[in-house]
Amino acid sequence: LCCPVLCSGIPDPAYRDYLIKEEMSRQMGGKVPLTDAEMQLNAQLQKMKRQEMGGSQFPPAMHFFQAKPLIERSAVYSFIQRMPKGAALHVHDFAMVDTAWLVKNVTYRPHCYVCFTDDQSVRFLFSLQVPKSIPHCSAWTLLQTLRAKMVNCTDLDDSFIRNLTLFTDHPEEAYPSQDVVWKRFEQAFLVVWGLVTYAPVFKDYFYEGLKQFRADHVIYLDLRALLPETYELDGKVNDRSWTMRAYQEVAQQFITDYPDFLGARIIFTVHRYVCSAVRITEAVKEAMRLQKEFPETMAGFDLVGREDAGRTLWYFREALALPKDLGDNLPYFFHAGETNWQGTDVDQNMLDALLFNTSRIGHGFALTRHPLVKELSRKMGVAVEVCPISNQVLKLVSDLRNHPASELMNDGHPLVISSDDPAIFGANGLSFDFYEAFMGLGGLRSDIRMLKELAWNSILYSSLSSQLKDKAMDMWTKQWDKFVEESLSYQN
Amino acid sequence: LCCPVLCSGIPDPAYRDYLIKEEMSRQMGGKVPLTDAEMQLNAQLQKMKRQEMGGSQFPPAMHFFQAKPLIERSAVYSFIQRMPKGAALHVHDFAMVDTAWLVKNVTYRPHCYVCFTDDQSVRFLFSLQVPKSIPHCSAWTLLQTLRAKMVNCTDLDDSFIRNLTLFTDHPEEAYPSQDVVWKRFEQAFLVVWGLVTYAPVFKDYFYEGLKQFRADHVIYLDLRALLPETYELDGKVNDRSWTMRAYQEVAQQFITDYPDFLGARIIFTVHRYVCSAVRITEAVKEAMRLQKEFPETMAGFDLVGREDAGRTLWYFREALALPKDLGDNLPYFFHAGETNWQGTDVDQNMLDALLFNTSRIGHGFALTRHPLVKELSRKMGVAVEVCPISNQVLKLVSDLRNHPASELMNDGHPLVISSDDPAIFGANGLSFDFYEAFMGLGGLRSDIRMLKELAWNSILYSSLSSQLKDKAMDMWTKQWDKFVEESLSYQN
Ligand SMILES: [Zn+2]
Ligand SMILES: [Zn+2]
Repeated sequence: LCCPVLCSGIPDPAYRDYLIKEEMSRQMGGKVPLTDAEMQLNAQLQKMKRQEMGGSQFPPAMHFFQAKPLIERSAVYSFIQRMPKGAALHVHDFAMVDTAWLVKNVTYRPHCYVCFTDDQSVRFLFSLQVPKSIPHCSAWTLLQTLRAKMVNCTDLDDSFIRNLTLFTDHPEEAYPSQDVVWKRFEQAFLVVWGLVTYAPVFKDYFYEGLKQFRADHVIYLDLRALLPETYELDGKVNDRSWTMRAYQEVAQQFITDYPDFLGARIIFTVHRYVCSAVRITEAVKEAMRLQKEFPETMAGFDLVGREDAGRTLWYFREALALPKDLGDNLPYFFHAGETNWQGTDVDQNMLDALLFNTSRIGHGFALTRHPLVKELSRKMGVAVEVCPISNQVLKLVSDLRNHPASELMNDGHPLVISSDDPAIFGANGLSFDFYEAFMGLGGLRSDIRMLKELAWNSILYSSLSSQLKDKAMDMWTKQWDKFVEESLSYQN
Repeated sequence: LCCPVLCSGIPDPAYRDYLIKEEMSRQMGGKVPLTDAEMQLNAQLQKMKRQEMGGSQFPPAMHFFQAKPLIERSAVYSFIQRMPKGAALHVHDFAMVDTAWLVKNVTYRPHCYVCFTDDQSVRFLFSLQVPKSIPHCSAWTLLQTLRAKMVNCTDLDDSFIRNLTLFTDHPEEAYPSQDVVWKRFEQAFLVVWGLVTYAPVFKDYFYEGLKQFRADHVIYLDLRALLPETYELDGKVNDRSWTMRAYQEVAQQFITDYPDFLGARIIFTVHRYVCSAVRITEAVKEAMRLQKEFPETMAGFDLVGREDAGRTLWYFREALALPKDLGDNLPYFFHAGETNWQGTDVDQNMLDALLFNTSRIGHGFALTRHPLVKELSRKMGVAVEVCPISNQVLKLVSDLRNHPASELMNDGHPLVISSDDPAIFGANGLSFDFYEAFMGLGGLRSDIRMLKELAWNSILYSSLSSQLKDKAMDMWTKQWDKFVEESLSYQN
């Protein structure tokens, strides 16, 4: 690339075309070859895209809560929904399943108790007897009894759903700051906690989660999981190995029921808000132990929670060095760079994640602000897990056209699109985030080749062994070819 | 730069330090040497900065209209205000002067008529007799007569100020979309038009503008100017050469009055909303003519108006090729990339500006989305004129920590900070934009060296001849040294 030498007043149109093409070839998907059928389908897709980008309201420029009904009516969204998207690599354990399922199915099960907290939230617990009261909460009431007294349970159920998600018609008023939205976000996990850590529900929830991702045309998940102890109706507590085994068994059962699905692996996550590094040392040790006990299911380790409010990776450096010191290889999948603050200690996390040889970077929202770290991650082949809706709802960015991953896409930086906590954001699977990425981050020119590369990337950068990656690619390719064929015959 | 080879579990702290330092040295200001006195002052500045970044409200994350009172109380702002900032390279002719001056001084002059439009706006005109009515406007009233009937003119004057600026306490409600805010923005220019094109006011306005920029410790302006015809009280109309001559004479008078000021040059601007390219051809010819008539004052040519709503540079390629075709050298200073839309024809403007050998890029908000164009502009040494407050008020970005120029700064891309239309945004001079850039775009680590490089850049990338650049650097250096000395003795 050198400065243009112009031979007339008008810049040489051939040189201009060359630069434009060169720019497009650098873009995500820019080097992906298409079959004739794919090109035909692409033409249809681009026509829909141009139409929707010319409309009076552009969903990626709006808050997702307000954009959602528009997206659901979008032809591009319907295309993306039906499209095989590969793997979901950044999803959290208790935000996989539509909250309506939790309320309509789980809370209607017998022995489900509820209490109402002082701050307008709720807690649930399954129990044979009335559970012991907890601070700042009303007495426990059996939901079955409560509902029996009501003529109509819709209001109650709706209030539960409101507690389980952040979804609201007026997000700007409800969540004026990152502090407020994170508080509500973390509270939603407290609400869901008593439901999903009940052992039978735990398994059903995961099965239902896989079902919903499969329905969204996803074939595999790297699931970030807290691996909590679970409880039985009689109060008996199951340990972490039970939880891992439950994931393994449910995934196995699901594959047996649906052979077009590949499975799930677990990234063990612990909270970064801890008082002492000792807790992280223990967690890393536990991760190494689980890796030995469940080598096929255990994918690696990560820290979760609001990055700005927690300890840095460097603070935990001794704990994180442990596997290497012991000659172990524990893959890391660090959340890093989920911040607007620049130059803080937390803002150092992306570099430290790379120095700790992270396999991927969760979010990496701040990556473009760090050109050197960006180069390093590209050279190391570390993909960024971009979660557009999460970043918008948690107030890192408002107009998704300004999402920094737009630049990463245009520069061919390795990345995947994921949904983080779809249930809490009122989304599901991957399609809403794919829509935002395709329309908002990719701009008018990104086309089916970008979508194809995103699906490829999701397999390439997954935690799967190379053998299973091959298998995943085979599965995806079959589904993709079928999708292309059916879409064309449907259109014609 | 290569992937790190780690010799123990903890990444080598020396290598980590090296990477962090390398990153900092790439940042704007990272290679600027400091004297002992400057280092001392820097320590004070960084202390203030850390304090303000730890506060409960962070102005760059807020809308400027709401942040302004906080900024005015900020110690960092006061530092920046007193600091010699060099040149203002992106400011428009009729948005230089505090609107209060227009209302309190100009509209109180004799023969000033006002009419009130159907859409709650106003128009002004100086005239000996009652002017002819204009459509969608009340009859013209002599302001002197109107005010004489009032007990208190504050409400009327305040309503004029509201019409002349976008400033409001609730910007999100007042300006829900780019369409709305641009409509009001362009209307503000219609309000000011009748005042500032009155020949005597035209000169006074420019003199007052220079005064206000000088008071903000700016020594030079590259002013983008529409060069309108002006009118006299008797209806006589002065042509464009009169306007250029007025700029030249007023600047000369100002330098005589204030020898610590260097002057101003003019970038002739025309609207990009034109029906035919012929109008642009005429404007380019006019620019070449003015360049010959006023070689010292005429700096170059640019197109203005909302980029998304106007024609592209490529559409005007024949007109823009004219100077080169005729063997002339008309420097271009194109607005380009002031858009959130990606992949549109308008989004191509930055590349085309470079292909037309632009001297600088106005805004370049979309530049980071175009890695190849970014490389090209860096190689060509083309500075981006970053106007943070303008971009926020005109709704390209809400949280200024997400402004893409943050990345450009961290990557050492050539850029300057300017204020675009300070009067309309309720700002003045450069200091508010410098504050946003220093605090919001630069992050915690950017320090006095960044501010110094910004000042240097403003001279280096100005349209001045190399001889005048030397003179400007001398002037600035003297003022800077004095500023450093006085700030230190003031602090101690
Ligand atoms: Zn996450
Ligand atoms: Zn401008």
